[in-house]
Amino acid sequence: MISKQDYERAAARACEMLRQAGIAITPEERLHVEVADFGLDELERSGLQLLTYLNTARCCAKELVMTPGQTCPEHRHPPVGASPGKEETFRCRWGSVYVYVPGEPAATPACRPPAGSEAHYTVWHEIRLRPGEQYTLRPDTKHWFQAGSEGAIVSEFSTRSTDENDIFTDPRIVRQPRVE
Amino acid sequence: MISKQDYERAAARACEMLRQAGIAITPEERLHVEVADFGLDELERSGLQLLTYLNTARCCAKELVMTPGQTCPEHRHPPVGASPGKEETFRCRWGSVYVYVPGEPAATPACRPPAGSEAHYTVWHEIRLRPGEQYTLRPDTKHWFQAGSEGAIVSEFSTRSTDENDIFTDPRIVRQPRVE
Repeated sequence: MISKQDYERAAARACEMLRQAGIAITPEERLHVEVADFGLDELERSGLQLLTYLNTARCCAKELVMTPGQTCPEHRHPPVGASPGKEETFRCRWGSVYVYVPGEPAATPACRPPAGSEAHYTVWHEIRLRPGEQYTLRPDTKHWFQAGSEGAIVSEFSTRSTDENDIFTDPRIVRQPRVE
Repeated sequence: MISKQDYERAAARACEMLRQAGIAITPEERLHVEVADFGLDELERSGLQLLTYLNTARCCAKELVMTPGQTCPEHRHPPVGASPGKEETFRCRWGSVYVYVPGEPAATPACRPPAGSEAHYTVWHEIRLRPGEQYTLRPDTKHWFQAGSEGAIVSEFSTRSTDENDIFTDPRIVRQPRVE
């Protein structure tokens, strides 16, 4: 559960980070920044701020705004009906982000999972993205990501987003924010 | 036909506009900026510079870079096989762009088609996009667009892009650039 005040503070901070990075958004969009704490009640460690530009039946584009060291917990986008699952590309616009996926584990990973949640982080192949760099994730692939020390702004280009179908490794996670 | 020198000059200018707008691209991407003169040999009037970030079977993202007053000629993305045609969203990042689509014609349009090509511009409903503003186009909808007086940088989010299927109103147009 996140308080309305904390939610609004996090959304305002995300808008300020977008402004500093030179990414223009409309006054209307400022009101629709989403703050996801994944039900873990530790937004600074486990969380994400999102601005969804569009999400049609066929494609989706968002900006993800992350505070320094903030982690989006491990999850995957499974097949749904006729769809093989959401395909997504992360493109770093500002700051840096470390994306973890299946594959050869990093010998000395740059990131640690949020304390107390270690058991729910299982993939350790590390991809560092700096501004202008991007990575495309196949559907149904486990992944998690953490912002570097400055935070990160990451454009996500994808097929339709249906958050309710996402499968998180951590069974405590609730994707839809519950605001007090 | 565009000379190699003009092509490279236009690509370099596009990279410089991206830099000024704070949009990071990799050294590798600098080498893959596409310059489209549509075979009309008047790039300053009819043309477009593009950087394609990704174009998978399912989705596509690009930056379109336009010099002041430059026009992307009228075209549509028709159904191809099982696809209803490309769906695209234009999001203005920098400068301004006027998009023309079917519908109530503008009483006093902000733009004029390139001189000599007027007959090939048939839709006149005007949408002005400034930074942070966007417009989603349904598949198979005629459209053309022109940058404002400063030029424009426009993010395009879409389903798969297959330029070879685009249908231009102007029969003289050749979409694939021919470089001398």
